[in-house]
Amino acid sequence: MIDSVLFLEGAMSVEKLQRYREQMRTELDKVVEFWQKYSHDTQYGGFFTCIGKDGKIYDELKYVWLQGRQVWMYCRLYRTMERFNKPEILEAAKSGGAFLRRFARIPNSGSPWKCAFCLTRDGKALKVQRTIFSECFYVMAMDELARVTGDKDMQVKQPGALNTSTIKFSVKIIFLQPHHFAVYQHSGGAEAAQMMDQLVHWVRVDPSGLGKPQLSGDTPVCSMAVPMMLLCLVQQLTEARSGEEVDKYREVGGWCVKQILQHLQRGGTAILESVSSEGKELPGCAGRLQNPGHALEAGWFLLQYGLENGDQELQRTAVDKFMEIPFLTGWDKEHGGLLYFLDVDGYCPTQLEWSMKLWWPHCEALIAYLMAYSHTKEPALLERFSQVYDYTFSHFSDAENGEWFGYLTQQGKVTLDFKGGPFKGFFHVPRCLYMCEKILDSILNKQES
Amino acid sequence: MIDSVLFLEGAMSVEKLQRYREQMRTELDKVVEFWQKYSHDTQYGGFFTCIGKDGKIYDELKYVWLQGRQVWMYCRLYRTMERFNKPEILEAAKSGGAFLRRFARIPNSGSPWKCAFCLTRDGKALKVQRTIFSECFYVMAMDELARVTGDKDMQVKQPGALNTSTIKFSVKIIFLQPHHFAVYQHSGGAEAAQMMDQLVHWVRVDPSGLGKPQLSGDTPVCSMAVPMMLLCLVQQLTEARSGEEVDKYREVGGWCVKQILQHLQRGGTAILESVSSEGKELPGCAGRLQNPGHALEAGWFLLQYGLENGDQELQRTAVDKFMEIPFLTGWDKEHGGLLYFLDVDGYCPTQLEWSMKLWWPHCEALIAYLMAYSHTKEPALLERFSQVYDYTFSHFSDAENGEWFGYLTQQGKVTLDFKGGPFKGFFHVPRCLYMCEKILDSILNKQES
Repeated sequence: MIDSVLFLEGAMSVEKLQRYREQMRTELDKVVEFWQKYSHDTQYGGFFTCIGKDGKIYDELKYVWLQGRQVWMYCRLYRTMERFNKPEILEAAKSGGAFLRRFARIPNSGSPWKCAFCLTRDGKALKVQRTIFSECFYVMAMDELARVTGDKDMQVKQPGALNTSTIKFSVKIIFLQPHHFAVYQHSGGAEAAQMMDQLVHWVRVDPSGLGKPQLSGDTPVCSMAVPMMLLCLVQQLTEARSGEEVDKYREVGGWCVKQILQHLQRGGTAILESVSSEGKELPGCAGRLQNPGHALEAGWFLLQYGLENGDQELQRTAVDKFMEIPFLTGWDKEHGGLLYFLDVDGYCPTQLEWSMKLWWPHCEALIAYLMAYSHTKEPALLERFSQVYDYTFSHFSDAENGEWFGYLTQQGKVTLDFKGGPFKGFFHVPRCLYMCEKILDSILNKQES
Repeated sequence: MIDSVLFLEGAMSVEKLQRYREQMRTELDKVVEFWQKYSHDTQYGGFFTCIGKDGKIYDELKYVWLQGRQVWMYCRLYRTMERFNKPEILEAAKSGGAFLRRFARIPNSGSPWKCAFCLTRDGKALKVQRTIFSECFYVMAMDELARVTGDKDMQVKQPGALNTSTIKFSVKIIFLQPHHFAVYQHSGGAEAAQMMDQLVHWVRVDPSGLGKPQLSGDTPVCSMAVPMMLLCLVQQLTEARSGEEVDKYREVGGWCVKQILQHLQRGGTAILESVSSEGKELPGCAGRLQNPGHALEAGWFLLQYGLENGDQELQRTAVDKFMEIPFLTGWDKEHGGLLYFLDVDGYCPTQLEWSMKLWWPHCEALIAYLMAYSHTKEPALLERFSQVYDYTFSHFSDAENGEWFGYLTQQGKVTLDFKGGPFKGFFHVPRCLYMCEKILDSILNKQES
């Protein structure tokens, strides 16, 4: 990576970047501590996700997205940051992984690999969505877990043995029926691969296994979330690997990028959340919907992909379009912070929460602008980062009890005060802090001490 | 009804009640005018429901709940209020009814009578919910339409011939397969009865036709919305009728009342939105959820039922529990208005909109307190009405463009400025104004001039 502070310009000093870095590091430690302290279910395994402002569990349900994300995050921290390469982190990840493998997959007439959306504390399925996302986070969790356990029954590795790249990945993909699960339960990596195949099938070939009824007016709609999520999985599954499987995923990755770029509409002036399958604007509210946080997250996914593939045009599009447009349209000039939803023509969105400030778009914005700055060294991008940083740390972070609040009014007042809920787990905050710390390390050309 | 103003006590003068009545009447006229002017789709039939603050259509989708509710409301106004007994009201209702009958019912493997949730402008099904509510509003619409058209191909009645009670209702109920629809399409009343049978079957016998997968952790949950909605339908289908069918519905009504009363929990101190099928409190957030607007709506349904059946204990419970508790827990003492959701133990609800002020709970509160006052003549209930009235008319009603805003922040600022949306149509506001006008008429012992 670009290695020097010489590029720093304008009013931003090295000291300031160092302060950012220390803040990210301190905050990450506090956030990890919070979830380690409060979220582990030592009786049934897995993680509580409904956690009040002071750590109290207010609901015992276990949301599968959040189980998968927490497994992934623990493993990633364990694998790539020395101070988290500790047995208690790995044990927690393995507990979550075992809970997921045992309970998340449910019988489903449409396809063998459907995951529940929500489980009871002891693992009984309570809800299932007709979308792909529970399965996506299952794949993320299983692959990252396989990387740290060496894919062999998730045995504990000795702490200290950091492994950033080298798991062999050549398990043959077989399309299994549910009753075959038992045979293959030794292999999280194989499960990840199989589930990924199923996901690609749902998205690119036939969605009927998701269980949505066929309706005459329900023409295919491309939601940006779908190729974004698949691209994220491709980056997960291909990192530091090669071979036939990886080539297959890379082809999927290229398709995802094309799909995401279709959401750049109106002559390159707007990022729309949903488009038609021909890449055209859809009629009505659904077609006009903008989700600045999603666009920013797509922005850093695209930038990362562009960097990995040496695609300079894609890098430019990621920064100039997917990062700049959401800021220009989504930043609340009166109260600060990023609005949750917008209508491109200025109508009022129909989502009741449209004007609220949510934590995760701010997390994604921090990653996006810092990553963009680290590669372009354009001072304006560091200014964007700084502006989002100031709002984020002064509004979301809870100095008293740790972790972040997730939901503010448009005016910036905390309106839902829990730290974990059905959609807020151990993911966006620690991923943001982790990535920002890594990027600031690289900008400051420092190794972790 | 109790006929006199002699009961009026305290500071509330007859003049004040007359002012309320005139306000209700004027506002109802304006609201009807708004929807007549902007919502009718003269090209495809049915009603636009996504209508901006100044009447502009911002989305052409047609939500089936709202189509059914608008047909019902037009017919009810036409049938029971002389100033609305006009051909243009009936024609609009018939257009909506024809659109519903032609497009709302969709092929469904589970049962022949499933209705879509959302249609395209030209009637193609876009979404279907796995709940009973689209079908419920279909029943309401078809029955009320049958009452004004005499059930014969919805022919136009001459204006002026008010008919408040007398439609014969003896169509034999036959459980039809979809291909039989054509044969019976002359009869909205028969369709209402058939759909009602299907609803009762889903709720009391077997919900599998709704299409929800069977999941091991998904134990049966009783949501208050279900018996409330069925009780509303029972009152619709039995009004001023008698005979075997009506006896059958009355049995359903009694069951609904018992079900609703199960939501009075914690020794009669709390109304909980969901309970177990044994009438016990459920664990977690779902079990602790309170919805003051729903409780108030249930309150006037129960009071009405108690009055019709001479059940004084039920009348008392309706007022003392279902109207008083939601006010004590749900009224925002700092900013005024009714909160949308609450947790009975004081945790933060997980619904992002929990602290918002929505129009419909205020509509239901106005009906509830005025109805309760008109029967008990307790001044405290008129004070409640007055307090809700002041908040409602000063915050929701739009003097500039007509109709009401639907969604305010906790502080009372309009945050979604449309007049119609996916869940806000021509229903709660006009039903409230209509019922309050009728009740005030009866209190003031006046006939419409």
